Amino acid sequence: MISHTRQSAVTVLGLGPMGRALAGAFLDAGLPTTVWNRTPGKDRELVERGASGARSPEEAVAASGVTVICVVNYDAVDAIIRGDAVARALKGRTIVNLTADTPARARNTGAWAAGRGIGYLDGAVMTPAPTIGTPAAVFLHSGPEELYREHRPVLDKLGGTHTHLGEDIGRAAAFDVALLDIFWTAMAGYAHALAVARAEGVTGRELAPFAKGIGAVLPPIFEQGAVDMDHGRFPGEVNPITSAVSSMAHVVHVSESHGIDAGVMRAAEGLARRVIGRGHGTDGFLRVTELLNPRGFER
Amino acid sequence: MISHTRQSAVTVLGLGPMGRALAGAFLDAGLPTTVWNRTPGKDRELVERGASGARSPEEAVAASGVTVICVVNYDAVDAIIRGDAVARALKGRTIVNLTADTPARARNTGAWAAGRGIGYLDGAVMTPAPTIGTPAAVFLHSGPEELYREHRPVLDKLGGTHTHLGEDIGRAAAFDVALLDIFWTAMAGYAHALAVARAEGVTGRELAPFAKGIGAVLPPIFEQGAVDMDHGRFPGEVNPITSAVSSMAHVVHVSESHGIDAGVMRAAEGLARRVIGRGHGTDGFLRVTELLNPRGFER
Ligand SMILES: NC(=O)c1ccc[n+]([C@@H]2O[C@H](COP(=O)([O-])OP(=O)(O)OC[C@H]3O[C@@H](n4cnc5c(N)ncnc54)[C@H](OP(=O)(O)O)[C@@H]3O)[C@@H](O)[C@H]2O)c1
Ligand SMILES: NC(=O)c1ccc[n+]([C@@H]2O[C@H](COP(=O)([O-])OP(=O)(O)OC[C@H]3O[C@@H](n4cnc5c(N)ncnc54)[C@H](OP(=O)(O)O)[C@@H]3O)[C@@H](O)[C@H]2O)c1
Repeated sequence: MISHTRQSAVTVLGLGPMGRALAGAFLDAGLPTTVWNRTPGKDRELVERGASGARSPEEAVAASGVTVICVVNYDAVDAIIRGDAVARALKGRTIVNLTADTPARARNTGAWAAGRGIGYLDGAVMTPAPTIGTPAAVFLHSGPEELYREHRPVLDKLGGTHTHLGEDIGRAAAFDVALLDIFWTAMAGYAHALAVARAEGVTGRELAPFAKGIGAVLPPIFEQGAVDMDHGRFPGEVNPITSAVSSMAHVVHVSESHGIDAGVMRAAEGLARRVIGRGHGTDGFLRVTELLNPRGFER
Repeated sequence: MISHTRQSAVTVLGLGPMGRALAGAFLDAGLPTTVWNRTPGKDRELVERGASGARSPEEAVAASGVTVICVVNYDAVDAIIRGDAVARALKGRTIVNLTADTPARARNTGAWAAGRGIGYLDGAVMTPAPTIGTPAAVFLHSGPEELYREHRPVLDKLGGTHTHLGEDIGRAAAFDVALLDIFWTAMAGYAHALAVARAEGVTGRELAPFAKGIGAVLPPIFEQGAVDMDHGRFPGEVNPITSAVSSMAHVVHVSESHGIDAGVMRAAEGLARRVIGRGHGTDGFLRVTELLNPRGFER
């Protein structure tokens, strides 16, 4: 051995699909990795690949300078880390919380950690578990810049792109919630479209190439819409909200003619109709952002 | 003039944003183009570019072997083409209806046209007006294969890709409705996300790069999900519906903490919770397709 490069060790708490993917990427990168999960047994494959399986979260946390936690929500995070033994073991160490929850919960956890001498970074994983360790992974982070810089080398082992959004600890969660809003609403639309297509004798395989095309149409529309909203502009020349509502009504009509619940589209259509009712029928659909959050557009 | 290539003439009825884009593409391709719109004046720019402005729909239809109609919905189509004078003028000619509506309405119009000796093709435009005449345009068609082949050279002048989905005249509308379902539900999610982001102090411009990333994540998920649904499989190993519901609840919670209506996400979350209540919590979110359309999955 010519030189012994000083290498960080890392702990992963929570071994759901995402926790397992994170721990797997650390192992692949050659980092000494300790893992723990509430329900035993989920560490088996990781231990076979070289991870140390800890018997308790305090033992897991004590094994590394930095702990990554990724569980279902912050209630689960609290259940794991706010016990006395774990809090004591975390003191002087850093915890990177990649669990998804609300900005308010992130700020609350940040304050708790600060009061106990625990370094705290909040973050969010924006891409599915199989992307972890690949260039496709997307991570958002927030919290003290210095702490982020210190642990960036460990985080980089997860692959993908990492963006530090600012010192406000709630910022990663704010982006996360907004992006999950887009993702899960789109997925609800897709699930519904598959059900409607099937009722019309169209298979998933037949619809998929065109559905993928919609995925390609959205990004430029998202980009332009964001810039427009920042300027309080909602242009409808290309596609007025009256035309959108007509399309939405067709979706509702066809769904319900097949006995398929159209509650999601009905809710969206309702927003659009309220915009039209307020005299903005020649504007674009994104005028609903102002209806949803009027205070955001006060001068 | 060395040779006079026999060239089709085309008529466009309806000069909303899409009708104008269609007529503009025909003009750019050098086709003799006649246009008409219910409200006068919308043909001005097209006439300046060389189109013939007709004074009535029957005059417009009589000018060409093939007429493309693209108006707000089939009520508008009926108002334009089902009058005696227009129906008479259409006899022996072909009408390509690129208006969006339901499969049932498309079949009804097909039957009407057949009874009057009018060639009828139904279709849908899947991309925004500015794509017309470019490779990005996507058109779906259905109806008699032979008629489609005959008029394909004229349709090709619109640029983009054209797919003939089958002889059932309602098929383009079935795909259209399913794809509009995806598109407008996703747009509702985006509008809502912009409103939530703004309430959290995040601008559209800050959110947009990541929102575009969601657009990139969706297509492979759509593809896999479609194949899985065709096999009645809804795997949840990577992302169980319990985890989805947790994300959805965060979106609802953050929205409502800012006074932002979360009706669209509440409807989606409600579907997911019903799936969990039926004992499918370890399945993936797309299990909701079966909840929405149980008959589609009967054996
Ligand atoms: N999966 C993905 O593709 C993906 C993508 C982006 C972001 N995320 C986010 O990553 C986080 C983890 O997701 P996941 O997919 O791994 O699965 P998940 O189902 O969201 O979370 C499962 C993990 O949470 C633990 N847990 C739940 N309740 C607990 C409690 N009261 N006390 C202690 N542990 C508890 C589970 O432990 P047990 O095994 O003991 O139940 C398990 O380790 C979530 O916030 C999710 O939104 C996931
Ligand atoms: N715009 C896009 O980017 C886009 C993209 C894909 C598909 N589409 C589809 O293309 C079709 C046309 O859309 P569009 O964007 O051009 O605008 P639109 O607002 O959907 O339709 C406007 C057209 O419909 C006509 N119209 C409405 N009611 C009528 C009636 N009762 N009688 C006669 N004409 C009537 C209007 O005439 P007046 O001027 O007299 O009101 C105008 O020509 C729609 O089905 C739409 O879903 C549009």
